[in-house]
Amino acid sequence: MLKQNYPSKLLEDAVDAIASLPGVGQRSALRLALHLLRQPSENVHRFTGAIDRLRDEACYCSVCSMISDGPECSICADRSRDHSTICVVENVRDVMSIENTGQYHGVYHVLGGIISPINGIGPSDLTISSLVQRTAALPPQGEVILALSGDVEGETTSFYIYRQISKFGIKVSTLARGLGFGDDLEYADELTLGRSIANRQIFKV
Amino acid sequence: MLKQNYPSKLLEDAVDAIASLPGVGQRSALRLALHLLRQPSENVHRFTGAIDRLRDEACYCSVCSMISDGPECSICADRSRDHSTICVVENVRDVMSIENTGQYHGVYHVLGGIISPINGIGPSDLTISSLVQRTAALPPQGEVILALSGDVEGETTSFYIYRQISKFGIKVSTLARGLGFGDDLEYADELTLGRSIANRQIFKV
Repeated sequence: MLKQNYPSKLLEDAVDAIASLPGVGQRSALRLALHLLRQPSENVHRFTGAIDRLRDEACYCSVCSMISDGPECSICADRSRDHSTICVVENVRDVMSIENTGQYHGVYHVLGGIISPINGIGPSDLTISSLVQRTAALPPQGEVILALSGDVEGETTSFYIYRQISKFGIKVSTLARGLGFGDDLEYADELTLGRSIANRQIFKV
Repeated sequence: MLKQNYPSKLLEDAVDAIASLPGVGQRSALRLALHLLRQPSENVHRFTGAIDRLRDEACYCSVCSMISDGPECSICADRSRDHSTICVVENVRDVMSIENTGQYHGVYHVLGGIISPINGIGPSDLTISSLVQRTAALPPQGEVILALSGDVEGETTSFYIYRQISKFGIKVSTLARGLGFGDDLEYADELTLGRSIANRQIFKV
């Protein structure tokens, strides 16, 4: 749809605002704006209020750099978790994905990105220096899990961090790679299948 | 993604708000919320402000029921348009679609929906009575174009309106139906192709 002929400047402004979101085109934005226009006023204000409050009040945890309602996030503040294990992830979504597995009980460190020269992101743009400090303060039985993506940039970042923290003599691990549950051998790429064979595990019933 | 384990109540509220939009799931909502969190504060306030203003200040044109910034919409207020031709459409999006063709210079009447007993929408829920009044006030050379969709509900609504306004002796027309430009005969449904043959037009070069 050409961007023209809006019957109302208010509608046009709202559509432009909504279409500024990533992945939302003019047509979807118009549909969403007309949907919001049909909602009760208090619902719309609850919607915009929640977004304003998120932007104005949410901050980053002073320990792990995760999004938080206060200076320390709920995971870092939870004394029942294992504070000697730090899982290093790229972003908040990764924290939520791991939390949703229910399999991890340590704490996190959110890098806020990944080393990517092509995007102009270097080590100093990430929270690597505070990770080094946290690692230095870990007890001897501590562990750092590098849970970054398996592409070149993720591997580069993992390697960079490993070089910074290996001097502390702490165990450094990375996520297991292999076939996903339910994956077909036929459709797996050679790298994944090769690693799955090399890292094969004892069959347990 | 299961709805759980949000690191921040503020984030959770914003994600819930965004996910309340039609066609937006929890995962997209989280992605959008994190995107908004990364934007400068003033951009986010411009975004929410545009939506608040749309809901609070936009109103409906007292003549044609279109969304408007004031009591009369820009089309109804435009004296250069042909006010003796009224195009009846279901909603605001249809007005914008027709306006974008640049082929129509009359005015509109937005029904605000379509007669649909299955959805509990009857003639009294639509702006049919004001359309009848407008039609009664048309000059003898006036015309009402019923530009409703071609499904059963659209045809029902067109027929209902026709019965209400035919007594005024005004010309009542409907949109031409047929093959779309570039359509393949092979893939056209029988109804459309049949109408295209029945309503064939003189070939002009």
